[in-house]
Amino acid sequence: VADPKRVITIDDMIRVPPFHEWLGVRLEAMSGAEAVLRIPYRPELIGNPLIPAIHGGIIAALIDLAGGVVLFRDLGVPTPTIDMRIDYIRPALAELDLVARARAKNVGSTVAYVDAEVSQLRSGEPWAPETAEAARLVATGRCVYSTKDRARPTPAGSVPIG
Amino acid sequence: VADPKRVITIDDMIRVPPFHEWLGVRLEAMSGAEAVLRIPYRPELIGNPLIPAIHGGIIAALIDLAGGVVLFRDLGVPTPTIDMRIDYIRPALAELDLVARARAKNVGSTVAYVDAEVSQLRSGEPWAPETAEAARLVATGRCVYSTKDRARPTPAGSVPIG
Amino acid sequence: VADPKRVITIDDMIRVPPFHEWLGVRLEAMSGAEAVLRIPYRPELIGNPLIPAIHGGIIAALIDLAGGVVLFRDLGVPTPTIDMRIDYIRPALAELDLVARARAKNVGSTVAYVDAEVSQLRSGEPWAPETAEAARLVATGRCVYSTKDRARPTPAGSVPIG
Amino acid sequence: VADPKRVITIDDMIRVPPFHEWLGVRLEAMSGAEAVLRIPYRPELIGNPLIPAIHGGIIAALIDLAGGVVLFRDLGVPTPTIDMRIDYIRPALAELDLVARARAKNVGSTVAYVDAEVSQLRSGEPWAPETAEAARLVATGRCVYSTKDRARPTPAGSVPIG
Repeated sequence: VADPKRVITIDDMIRVPPFHEWLGVRLEAMSGAEAVLRIPYRPELIGNPLIPAIHGGIIAALIDLAGGVVLFRDLGVPTPTIDMRIDYIRPALAELDLVARARAKNVGSTVAYVDAEVSQLRSGEPWAPETAEAARLVATGRCVYSTKDRARPTPAGSVPIG
Repeated sequence: VADPKRVITIDDMIRVPPFHEWLGVRLEAMSGAEAVLRIPYRPELIGNPLIPAIHGGIIAALIDLAGGVVLFRDLGVPTPTIDMRIDYIRPALAELDLVARARAKNVGSTVAYVDAEVSQLRSGEPWAPETAEAARLVATGRCVYSTKDRARPTPAGSVPIG
Repeated sequence: VADPKRVITIDDMIRVPPFHEWLGVRLEAMSGAEAVLRIPYRPELIGNPLIPAIHGGIIAALIDLAGGVVLFRDLGVPTPTIDMRIDYIRPALAELDLVARARAKNVGSTVAYVDAEVSQLRSGEPWAPETAEAARLVATGRCVYSTKDRARPTPAGSVPIG
Repeated sequence: VADPKRVITIDDMIRVPPFHEWLGVRLEAMSGAEAVLRIPYRPELIGNPLIPAIHGGIIAALIDLAGGVVLFRDLGVPTPTIDMRIDYIRPALAELDLVARARAKNVGSTVAYVDAEVSQLRSGEPWAPETAEAARLVATGRCVYSTKDRARPTPAGSVPIG
């Protein structure tokens, strides 16, 4: 399981970039293999007022960020996103939070491949591995990140995720 | 070229969804084949304060939206995004605007394929087809949208893009 | 578990298209959720003689076909491929067979999303769910298929997969 | 335009790998920015006998190979494929050849992004830039390749493409 001190540190760092702060994203859980990030619902996230549904760009941002957190935990350096694919399986409904689980499929010396799934939970409903299957799946994503800086130390005081 | 009245109408509609309004996205140009959308730079868009660079999720949102506008112009109905691929060619630098050009590759009765390119321009520098090649290319995208509702009329007063 | 008669029927049908026959692809297993297809190694599959490694196009063909089989089992009609993404995690080595597991993530009335993983096993080594984690993962794929013909009956005597 | 000797050399090398030889792929043209590869039609390429149509895996292989040729021309080393996306716009009909145009969007020190389009021409009909728009577009692709070996010399007598 995760080191609680480290979880707190990463959770704090996640919201340093201004767009991340606006998203209100937070670290929900971190295990040896996975990072779970959450964006609580807010009306500003709506992209389709007819359904109403959260914008696909919010989901893309969450997937990109969750993959970056998984890799930062292991590598300790920022990993620029090379490319990303998102499959939008069903609308992300208003009033429900977004929760992304990301897991590295392979971390090499040039690139890393990360898989992610985005589901929805009710506000205040905690995420748990045993209930994850029951959550409402809205999208899956696959990202490739550059890991060429993995051997390069991060500058002190830097903000490495994003 | 485009009907100016129609350009104005779509530009107004683009910002009705709350997330689009927050993005500040606007319709820069519309031709028979392309839609050009622009997000003026704001510090809230930053995802990597070290470079500093605009977040990849903003670019994904802009590509998704530009593709939806191209199709809405032709079909007159919303087209849910089925999937999306983004290639992040270089960082989207702070202080520069984002401009997306989207063009439909094929519009069928089930799905439509749209290509998009995202470049950067200085604030206040107008986009023009003849200078587009000189703009700083930051990402390319490919989106697939569902067109199954193309024969279904849009409800009166609806907000169809998003 | 699967109906053995149905497994035999699909396995026979898979190799009716000439390119499938050349690939030598066969149905290794079929469960309620997954199809497992196998291409035994042959030197003609080599795309990079230096490593030596099997060509990425063979892997792409296998992923596309495995997804089609999963959907055909459930829908009984051909499902044209709309798009595909392949991540090439490591080279597919010569002398080893290719095995693809495909699983539908969502089957809707317009499109279906399928996930697939391609691993390698030694020639003659049977695939089994409990040893699947130990197999050599070489690629993952995500395909989107059109399901709009799901309500349309297949013509008698037709060759529906491909 | 291209150095004819170099065109011949690359065209010869393309078919050295056994799968490429089976495909019958050949270099149709090479300009400063693009490589054009062609696979003449043969019944063995058929994946769907009902339409009849060429298998999507053949198209994926051709796109992957065309991108590799563009990069090999510029870098002189093999560039392993990291990932690939293919959009299947319409069926690739039997009796028609496949022609892929590939163009690098960006070649960096870690990865290169290549765009490709696959069209169809009648057997014996030569490809020409001025008639390319009239050809029957069947698929578009986007590939990412590793360029980390670009500074490493190729071993003498090697077979670098594939």
